[in-house]
Amino acid sequence: MSLPVRRRYDTESLLEVAVAVFTERGYDGTSMEDLARASGLSKSSLYHHIESKEQLLRLALERAVEPLFAVTREPAALEGPAMKRLEHVVRREVEVLAAQLPYVTLLLRVHGNTEVERWALEQRRGFDKIVAGLVARAAHEGDLRADLDPAVVTRLLFGMINSLVEWYRPDGAAARAARHTRMAPADLADAVVRLAFDGLRG
Amino acid sequence: MSLPVRRRYDTESLLEVAVAVFTERGYDGTSMEDLARASGLSKSSLYHHIESKEQLLRLALERAVEPLFAVTREPAALEGPAMKRLEHVVRREVEVLAAQLPYVTLLLRVHGNTEVERWALEQRRGFDKIVAGLVARAAHEGDLRADLDPAVVTRLLFGMINSLVEWYRPDGAAARAARHTRMAPADLADAVVRLAFDGLRG
Repeated sequence: MSLPVRRRYDTESLLEVAVAVFTERGYDGTSMEDLARASGLSKSSLYHHIESKEQLLRLALERAVEPLFAVTREPAALEGPAMKRLEHVVRREVEVLAAQLPYVTLLLRVHGNTEVERWALEQRRGFDKIVAGLVARAAHEGDLRADLDPAVVTRLLFGMINSLVEWYRPDGAAARAARHTRMAPADLADAVVRLAFDGLRG
Repeated sequence: MSLPVRRRYDTESLLEVAVAVFTERGYDGTSMEDLARASGLSKSSLYHHIESKEQLLRLALERAVEPLFAVTREPAALEGPAMKRLEHVVRREVEVLAAQLPYVTLLLRVHGNTEVERWALEQRRGFDKIVAGLVARAAHEGDLRADLDPAVVTRLLFGMINSLVEWYRPDGAAARAARHTRMAPADLADAVVRLAFDGLRG
């Protein structure tokens, strides 16, 4: 879909407000009324910007889905031993999570009650499948410990990475206020890669 | 609180029903009416068994909290190098999660709107603090990789372990029906310990 250029700024800030409201109240529990109140717009100006609540959800989820898939198309994700490709994808996935935190948080909480939500779940499964494929291939190439099951490794990796939305904030003030941990995204990505690939004992 | 012995079986099955309903609808969204319907009891027989919805919640959460704390009092959690103690606690924590899955799932979803929920959150923080203490001590003793921040390691460990409630089922049929992963609890605990302590590369 295309939006007139002069409205770009407004749609951007509307999206920020919407993603916060959707995450707090749940998508099902959010009305256009709620979105109007939170954005300080009248319901009719809201409809100037967007056609429906679902369109806003789709735009918000694309902010998470598109950069995640872009990672899987980067050269370092496509060439070389699977273990190196997996390492690249994990590192970049953490960076995308840090950069798109509100949008990824929403993506991880989607239930699948509407067409857009089902689309988002489908995308998540597609991404998970790519990572699972890399883990399985690394096992096949003999670079994954033989005593680890690739399917379980994939689940544990995602468990570790997806937990970031609960406890990580790139911004210091927000982190302190809510007992979250603050860290530069690249350092966070380093920590995840070290722990996952080389373990606590190093 | 003490329950008459002859009611033990009923309270046990009531607890199983209640934890399933609380997890599905949320504690706030569950009425005594809902609990009566789900358990097939009349509201008045329900009140024979329990005083309140909150009492059921407390009993259910104790099923998660007590065995988790019991782990931290086991000899292997108290003696020896912190890294070995941490490994023991992580392994046993996974086993407790597997054994008490519905109760731990409820514990991880509690919000803190009532006194019992705030008590549960307090217990979780207490448990997290013990693990964080072991990680920090392992770092101090030189057994944790120097390039990993103990606070971040603790968060990632919990992220990995707590994700089990989303994707792990000890029971085969339930696992297959919902695309979950099945595995014996001891094997799962081994996998978590290997990945966390020695990494994918082994």
